[in-house]
Amino acid sequence: MNLYPLSLQRLVRELSKLPSIGEKSAMRLAYYLVNDKKDVARSVAESLLAASESIGLCSECFFFCETGSLRDKQGFSLEHNTLCPICIAPGREKTVFCIVEKPVDVVAIEKTGEFNGLYHVLHGLWSPLKGVGTDEIKLDELMKRVNENGVKEVILGLNATIEGDATCLYICDLLREKSVNVTRLAQGMPKGGELEYSDEVTITRAFHGRVQL
Amino acid sequence: MNLYPLSLQRLVRELSKLPSIGEKSAMRLAYYLVNDKKDVARSVAESLLAASESIGLCSECFFFCETGSLRDKQGFSLEHNTLCPICIAPGREKTVFCIVEKPVDVVAIEKTGEFNGLYHVLHGLWSPLKGVGTDEIKLDELMKRVNENGVKEVILGLNATIEGDATCLYICDLLREKSVNVTRLAQGMPKGGELEYSDEVTITRAFHGRVQL
Repeated sequence: MNLYPLSLQRLVRELSKLPSIGEKSAMRLAYYLVNDKKDVARSVAESLLAASESIGLCSECFFFCETGSLRDKQGFSLEHNTLCPICIAPGREKTVFCIVEKPVDVVAIEKTGEFNGLYHVLHGLWSPLKGVGTDEIKLDELMKRVNENGVKEVILGLNATIEGDATCLYICDLLREKSVNVTRLAQGMPKGGELEYSDEVTITRAFHGRVQL
Repeated sequence: MNLYPLSLQRLVRELSKLPSIGEKSAMRLAYYLVNDKKDVARSVAESLLAASESIGLCSECFFFCETGSLRDKQGFSLEHNTLCPICIAPGREKTVFCIVEKPVDVVAIEKTGEFNGLYHVLHGLWSPLKGVGTDEIKLDELMKRVNENGVKEVILGLNATIEGDATCLYICDLLREKSVNVTRLAQGMPKGGELEYSDEVTITRAFHGRVQL
C-alpha cells in the first residue's frame, strides 16, 4: 500500500521521467513543492506550460526561437517569429556556417565572441549504436541551406567524441562536391590542462595539431 | 544579450529555484522539456498544479493527505479528507506515537512493518543555528494530541544528528510531567557497517547502547 496521496504519487512519477532525476530526487522535489512551496510549484507549472506553448525552432538554423502568442503581443509578425535572434541580426556573415549539436552549444560559442557567421543546429549526432541515423538529424536542411546561400566555409563545432568524429566525417563527405571550405574546431590540451592528468587521445591530438611558434 | 527566448529564460529561472538544481541542470532540464518532450512538459505541469491544489496535511498527525476535489469524486466526505490513511486505519494503537521530522520518514518506518501506532510529523527540527525555533515545528499540536488522547508511549524517531538530538531533549523536557514513556530509536552500527569505516560517534553510541546476548 502506497501511503502517499494519489496526486503526489503522480507528481513523483512525472518528475522521475526527467533526465538525471531518479525516484528519490523526485520524491524530495515533490516534498519540497507540495509541502510549503505551493507558489513555487504553481510558477514552475505555469512557466512549463508557457514555454512548451511558445518555444519553437528557428526555421533557418534550428536554434530556439519564440513562436506564437508571446511574440505576437510584442508586435512581431508571424514571418519574423520563425527566425531566431542570430538569423535576424544584421551584420553577420551569411556565407559562414558553424554546425553544432545542440542549442546550448550556440550559446557557448556566442559567449566567446569569436564567431560572426550563422549557425546550424543538428539536434543530435549520428550514432548508429544509439539508434540515431543520419536522417534523424538536420542534415537535409543543412544541405538545402548550403546550396541556397552560397556558403563558403563550414566550421564543424561538434563534440570531440566518437559520435562527433563520425558526424564530422559524414558531413565532410556530403560537402565534398561543393566548393565549400570545411574545417573543424582544434583539438588539444584544454586551458589549464596538465599533461600528467590528460588522457592519451587528448595528448595524441594535441601532438597532431601542434602549432608553429 | 541572452539569446534564449524569454519563456525559456523564465523556465530556467523557475527550475533553478528547486533544491539541488543549479543553473546548468535547470538549462539541461528545460532543453529536454521544450526540445522534443513537450508532452512530458505538459504532464509535469499538470501534475504539479493538481498536487499543489489537492495535497494537504492530515489534521491529526500532519502526514500528507488528499484534500478537496480529488477525493470528493471518490465519495469521501470533507471531514474524512483531512485525515491521512494511517489515522483513519482501524486497528492501530492510538496511545503510541512515533514522532518524525518529515512525511518521508513515516513511509520509511511503515515499510519495516515494526510499528503499529500513530505518527506525529514535526515538519522540521529545532535548529537555532538555521533559525528554526521550537514554535516553528508542530510541537504545540503534539502536546495537544498527547493531552487529548491519553498517550502512553512516545517514540522519538528523529535523525541521529545534532538537530535531532536537540529536538529529542526538548520534547523529553516537555513530556516530563506527563505520565508518558519516552523512548528514542537505538543508535549504533548500521546493518553491514564495518568498524574500520565507522566514525567515532557511531562507535561510541554503539558501545553505550550495547545489548546483553
